[in-house]
Amino acid sequence: MPPGGCLAVIGPGLIGGSAALAARAAGLFAHFVAYTPDRAEGRLALSRGIADRLADNAAAAVAGADFILLAVPPAAMGDTLAAIAPTVGSGALITDVGSVKVPIVEAARAALGERFPDFVPGHPLAGAERHGAVSARADLFRDHRVLLTPLAETDPARTARVAEFWTALGAAVEFLDPLRHDDVLALTSHLPHLLAFSLVDHLLAELGEQDAFRYAAGGFRDFTRIAASDADLWADIGCANRVALLAALSGYRERLGELAEALARADRAALAECFGRASAARRSVLSTRTAEGQS
Amino acid sequence: MPPGGCLAVIGPGLIGGSAALAARAAGLFAHFVAYTPDRAEGRLALSRGIADRLADNAAAAVAGADFILLAVPPAAMGDTLAAIAPTVGSGALITDVGSVKVPIVEAARAALGERFPDFVPGHPLAGAERHGAVSARADLFRDHRVLLTPLAETDPARTARVAEFWTALGAAVEFLDPLRHDDVLALTSHLPHLLAFSLVDHLLAELGEQDAFRYAAGGFRDFTRIAASDADLWADIGCANRVALLAALSGYRERLGELAEALARADRAALAECFGRASAARRSVLSTRTAEGQS
Repeated sequence: MPPGGCLAVIGPGLIGGSAALAARAAGLFAHFVAYTPDRAEGRLALSRGIADRLADNAAAAVAGADFILLAVPPAAMGDTLAAIAPTVGSGALITDVGSVKVPIVEAARAALGERFPDFVPGHPLAGAERHGAVSARADLFRDHRVLLTPLAETDPARTARVAEFWTALGAAVEFLDPLRHDDVLALTSHLPHLLAFSLVDHLLAELGEQDAFRYAAGGFRDFTRIAASDADLWADIGCANRVALLAALSGYRERLGELAEALARADRAALAECFGRASAARRSVLSTRTAEGQS
Repeated sequence: MPPGGCLAVIGPGLIGGSAALAARAAGLFAHFVAYTPDRAEGRLALSRGIADRLADNAAAAVAGADFILLAVPPAAMGDTLAAIAPTVGSGALITDVGSVKVPIVEAARAALGERFPDFVPGHPLAGAERHGAVSARADLFRDHRVLLTPLAETDPARTARVAEFWTALGAAVEFLDPLRHDDVLALTSHLPHLLAFSLVDHLLAELGEQDAFRYAAGGFRDFTRIAASDADLWADIGCANRVALLAALSGYRERLGELAEALARADRAALAECFGRASAARRSVLSTRTAEGQS
């Protein structure tokens, strides 16, 4: 992608801010504009070089921009898309970083109308329990996957430009159907978050806060690290993807029921079989990833 | 504890080996003997300074020892106790590191008979998915908790010596009833392991190995790190503590059922409430622990 043009980031937090920093480091754009309703975040975005200029609102931020990155929480995507629709330039593209895709695709279709082909749905598999511009860093996407979920109507040239963008930031781009995306992420991301939150909550209820953590070994700390994530964001994601998440949760609860039955009949072999398959797979992936430097 | 005497470690792996290395560094004993049926592990224990001398069997290892540390898997504790019972010296104490306490206490009562008061049940909350003498390190217990679960019959002087031992190794010793220990650890350790193993196994079944990990973000890696643990060891622990683990699992499944109902009725507030309690508690503990250097 030759340098030039303007990147507009709506929501210059951990993901949006990191994308802007990385794009600046890669020399992808000549101008960087951002919009956030949070004034302190905006000042931080300016001082950290995430943006050269802050806009007063989302519509003003995207006017004149070539590459529009929507990095607001999934629940805010619909309003944001509606706000920018009137001022998106004719040659511009819009992409997003939302953790769910079908609801955002639907919101984009409704808000953008005949400009819907200019929208390339995306989801970088990066981020942590931290958030905000303060946590943004140019290497956040290096060696991480970015999933793009273009539709039949999506302009292939714009999809290619978005893929080029993330590749330049060090990410590995993959393409997926939006429905499949939401089903898969319900299992690999949304369900684990629900389990971690609810396990910590369950232990608080059963043992009280002091004992719950007092008698926890190291493994529990790792296991529940994602329970320190933004509760409101994950409640939104859970609701936005609730059909797929419910299916994932139901399937997992059935599996737990089988393990409970195995425990009830003291069936050590059944436990060892389940644990063994998981351990072998987890170890093989852990070592592979470490070799790739994806620790 | 004045230096002198002999430490016998049955099972000089990660936990037993680390305890011996730390005890040597702290100058707690003059002699270090170990027994393992694994010849390669034995050679490693000698070369790493975990032991000065290897015994041919457990009974020979404890003859003449003052402090006997049983660091074999929980399922092997009964046989080990029976094997050493005839050769334990009259002034010696026996302690263990098992992750479950009631079944080991029962095994010790059966194997040791009138020498049962010389046995101090213990459980250091340290360890990882690694194991073996190769992973042993002198600082493994620093700033970690060690739970001792003495009974009414346990000799208080021996309990005090075991507490002194772990304190000298940098650990914080706490006392707990064995039944309470097994109930609490079922929630804080055994249940999280079962969940991590079964979640990975479920994803393998639903998505296949490649996609299960391909579309997993960073949180999933932390969440499932403990699924790389020793599957046989955890199947043993699960079965040894199956009554408490079943109760913990049943309670958690009920909580998941409530969350499924909340999802089914799109009750965002119920999700946010559960997630919010967990996130606040997890964050407050995370920051406290970090400040204490227990990262």
